[in-house]
Amino acid sequence: MSNLLKGIGASAGIAIAKAYRLEEPELKIEKTDVADKVAEKARFEQAIEKSKSELEKIKEHANRELGKDKAEIFAAHLLVLSDPELLNPVVDRINTEAVNAEFAMKETADMFVSMFESMDNEYMKERAADIRDVTKRVIAHLLGVQIPNPSLISEEVVIIAEDLTPSDTAQLNRQFVLGFTTDIGGRTSHSAIMARSMEIPAVVGTKHATEKIENDVMVIVDGLDGDVIINPTSEEIAHYEDKKAKYESQKAEWAKLVNEPTVSKDGHHVELAANIGTPNDVKGVLENGGEAVGLYRTEFLYMGRDQLPTEDEQFDAYKTVLERMEGKPVVVRTLDIGGDKELPYLNLPKEMNPFLGFRAIRLCLEEQDIFRTQLRALLRASSFGNLKIMFPMIATVTEFREAKAILLEEKEKLVANGTKVSDSIEIGIMVEIPSTAVMADTFAKEVDFFSIGTNDLIQYTMAADRMNERVSYLYQPYNPAILRLISMVIDAAHKEGKWAGMCGEMAGDPIAIPLLLGLGLDEFSMSATSILPARTQIKGLSKEQAQGIKETVLSMTTTEEVVAFVKETFNVQ
Amino acid sequence: MSNLLKGIGASAGIAIAKAYRLEEPELKIEKTDVADKVAEKARFEQAIEKSKSELEKIKEHANRELGKDKAEIFAAHLLVLSDPELLNPVVDRINTEAVNAEFAMKETADMFVSMFESMDNEYMKERAADIRDVTKRVIAHLLGVQIPNPSLISEEVVIIAEDLTPSDTAQLNRQFVLGFTTDIGGRTSHSAIMARSMEIPAVVGTKHATEKIENDVMVIVDGLDGDVIINPTSEEIAHYEDKKAKYESQKAEWAKLVNEPTVSKDGHHVELAANIGTPNDVKGVLENGGEAVGLYRTEFLYMGRDQLPTEDEQFDAYKTVLERMEGKPVVVRTLDIGGDKELPYLNLPKEMNPFLGFRAIRLCLEEQDIFRTQLRALLRASSFGNLKIMFPMIATVTEFREAKAILLEEKEKLVANGTKVSDSIEIGIMVEIPSTAVMADTFAKEVDFFSIGTNDLIQYTMAADRMNERVSYLYQPYNPAILRLISMVIDAAHKEGKWAGMCGEMAGDPIAIPLLLGLGLDEFSMSATSILPARTQIKGLSKEQAQGIKETVLSMTTTEEVVAFVKETFNVQ
Repeated sequence: MSNLLKGIGASAGIAIAKAYRLEEPELKIEKTDVADKVAEKARFEQAIEKSKSELEKIKEHANRELGKDKAEIFAAHLLVLSDPELLNPVVDRINTEAVNAEFAMKETADMFVSMFESMDNEYMKERAADIRDVTKRVIAHLLGVQIPNPSLISEEVVIIAEDLTPSDTAQLNRQFVLGFTTDIGGRTSHSAIMARSMEIPAVVGTKHATEKIENDVMVIVDGLDGDVIINPTSEEIAHYEDKKAKYESQKAEWAKLVNEPTVSKDGHHVELAANIGTPNDVKGVLENGGEAVGLYRTEFLYMGRDQLPTEDEQFDAYKTVLERMEGKPVVVRTLDIGGDKELPYLNLPKEMNPFLGFRAIRLCLEEQDIFRTQLRALLRASSFGNLKIMFPMIATVTEFREAKAILLEEKEKLVANGTKVSDSIEIGIMVEIPSTAVMADTFAKEVDFFSIGTNDLIQYTMAADRMNERVSYLYQPYNPAILRLISMVIDAAHKEGKWAGMCGEMAGDPIAIPLLLGLGLDEFSMSATSILPARTQIKGLSKEQAQGIKETVLSMTTTEEVVAFVKETFNVQ
Repeated sequence: MSNLLKGIGASAGIAIAKAYRLEEPELKIEKTDVADKVAEKARFEQAIEKSKSELEKIKEHANRELGKDKAEIFAAHLLVLSDPELLNPVVDRINTEAVNAEFAMKETADMFVSMFESMDNEYMKERAADIRDVTKRVIAHLLGVQIPNPSLISEEVVIIAEDLTPSDTAQLNRQFVLGFTTDIGGRTSHSAIMARSMEIPAVVGTKHATEKIENDVMVIVDGLDGDVIINPTSEEIAHYEDKKAKYESQKAEWAKLVNEPTVSKDGHHVELAANIGTPNDVKGVLENGGEAVGLYRTEFLYMGRDQLPTEDEQFDAYKTVLERMEGKPVVVRTLDIGGDKELPYLNLPKEMNPFLGFRAIRLCLEEQDIFRTQLRALLRASSFGNLKIMFPMIATVTEFREAKAILLEEKEKLVANGTKVSDSIEIGIMVEIPSTAVMADTFAKEVDFFSIGTNDLIQYTMAADRMNERVSYLYQPYNPAILRLISMVIDAAHKEGKWAGMCGEMAGDPIAIPLLLGLGLDEFSMSATSILPARTQIKGLSKEQAQGIKETVLSMTTTEEVVAFVKETFNVQ
């Protein structure tokens, strides 16, 4: 009898093969006294060297198989192994406490890990995972224990593990490892990200995979729906073989569109762009056929640090993105911090309703040093590509005028100093506050473009915190109120000869796409992996038909009516 | 040289007189051992009896001078003095600890006071103040100390005090006490409320009045602007005499309008209604010429208690309001709890953004027992007057349909049981969420009326918590975005032959009134004391002129433009 496990689909695709349990050895560390401290320190240094040379090999393998970006994780691991902040305390402990190296290493690493984990920030949690991964390798060498080497797998399998470390994942041989499933992890954990870039189907966060799946039983990993089927029946195998074939032919169709423009069935072009967080994300944008970066979230530059990034650090990041995009548009959003996104070093006061609080442009207009530094970095980078700047959380025209004036002031100063600054930078705003959507006609006279931020626009328009489960039923992207506001924004832009984009989750949503096409949206910005499916969908749509249903949809009363109508009219699932 | 103190204008008008410091005696309480417990208890009972007889006199005085409603505070004080929950622990302490009565009284009272104060709820804080007031009187009797008796004042003065207790205020002789100013307190403290009903000018919360003002110096209390001038120059006295005369002639004008309808210069009628919280507020509504209750906030029924009010308790309150309003419309808002308004006994989970959370109709649709009990009480009361019911925080038509269905279900059950229920109850909604304003045309087909709740509508539309000082600059009632939404709501109502009211602070605002008249608002609901000034203002306005500037204002860009334009066009200060 087959058995179903539910998890999170972390990497699309379907794998059918027997299970291979990748078990981490138990590293038993006892505290012992050492008489010869010099010998102990030498033993520690040897373990570090062995770990480094292994990591070098893994890095080369990753570089070859996965590309430079993904290999950077291992460059970071190598840095950890050279970091005196981690190593010195270990040596100190051996010296002063006369303890064994594995114990000293573990104690020191645990301290860093718990410090980083307590920071309640995705980035720092990943740093904690890095230290844990590296430490395990060093301790394994000290204990003389073999840690698993997935690169030795030589038959077709699906890997079952509690979790996969980045080094585990990087060593997977795509020829034999058809998929994997883990007990823990989420869509943004390292193993999930690597699985997607290696295109290995994966389901993470199943909670019970290692408990329920024994070696050599047949397993189906459905990364599309987040399902794991243990001991499938022959009917189930046939069903998933079929689903796999369909998915793969669909992928082949998508792949053909990487270098194609996005054109509707009746010949109208729209721009499909990607949302990114770091320069490393550009590779994925290009591989997935992104025509632009529609939203570069600059917050990551400010996170996981103990002070503000310098102007030069920011300049480097912006320049890198602009160069890698080779002249394609890059819309950079200025700092959107505050609210739920905290920076410990800014010491912002706790707020009763952070989503309605002092954040983004509100903070930047007050803390102008931070804002001006970012603007200078952007202006200096502008000559290296096609830069557009947008301000987040604009609620009034007055705020936009103030922000723009500061930008122009910094530009003038730079130009006066002989710095090269592009003369064609478009300056736009995020439309994510209801007042701004309602006033779009007056904004359109002053901005160069709009980018509708649906995540926030929906939660403010419905007065419902999308993170609060008790009111999440009100997070309704297809509510006619939302569609009317979007329509007002697009019409206002076009009336003044400006363009309107969208960079919320809605832009890549198959139900929203026909609606947005009909409302006249010019640019759709989404996660890179949604671009090719969206392009495929748009190629099958008639813009004229989509425009034809605009008035019908805008006069509907409920979300449910809209969804049912779109599904039927455009044959969307 | 004169000296200015800034405070909160708690009661309008101007008083010019010399200062009279009302100082509370210091009640020094030492713990002593008592040998004769029986005598000590007798002493305690005597103090209680003396206090009661004083309070009876104060109550009679208040009844005669201030009316029955205000005298109820002293009925409450008398109840405290008969409450075994307060008195028994005092007697117990004397019995078991052999301590003096004043110490036992103070310890017991302090416990209740700190318990009530910790409840973080205006109502309970007032209860704490009541206990403090009563206890002071009892202890003064035990110590043989005279507490001040403001009723003995026999020359024209302005009272200076740290704070005024309800009993102090009730004893003020309006003939001699021309005004007062205090260090602490706010617009809703007891002393402020009583000052308004006694029409004694008052400035509270000056922080430094008792420190800066000595006995017998001249003082001007400007309750209109919240200013206190110490040692005024003769020019200042002349200026304020003039301001006082103007205010008084204006008041006389207002008083003539109590029984007049509200009609614009060119003959258009609008309805001026009042917002109330309890049945006792009805008196003020009628005295100020209210044509209706536009918002009965039912939350007070649920607050300051440890369990839900019963259906009968609610029925009594609703019936009382309906009867006292004698057939004039009474719009009752169903329970708007959750968010910042917490009920300890409901055990609602803490939320990250309570203003975007599980509150009002969202809570009522889930906790249907609470909702149905309130609806039954309302339906049963409906035959005693002109009841209209409205639901708060409606974001979607689906929610309205659900709420209305529950109401009709309860009505059917009551009617089936032979209970008399009015057949002409109008069912409407608060428009306080942007989606609802945007969708007003579809709502207008299903509701009987709209009441625009501007306090919330503004904060959601601007995405700015009005309680958060750092973003309060975005709380902009005159922002064209807000005016456009209001206009959409009013037009949508009229198109379906429905009426539209407003019950936020904006409805009584002299700058907003010409705008709202021009947009076609049918009903303005405000604090009772704003009604006569508003009626005066509207009598001087031409609706046609106000309508004529509608398009101009709605196409403006900023708040500042709107305000400047209204001030100039309608001569508003």
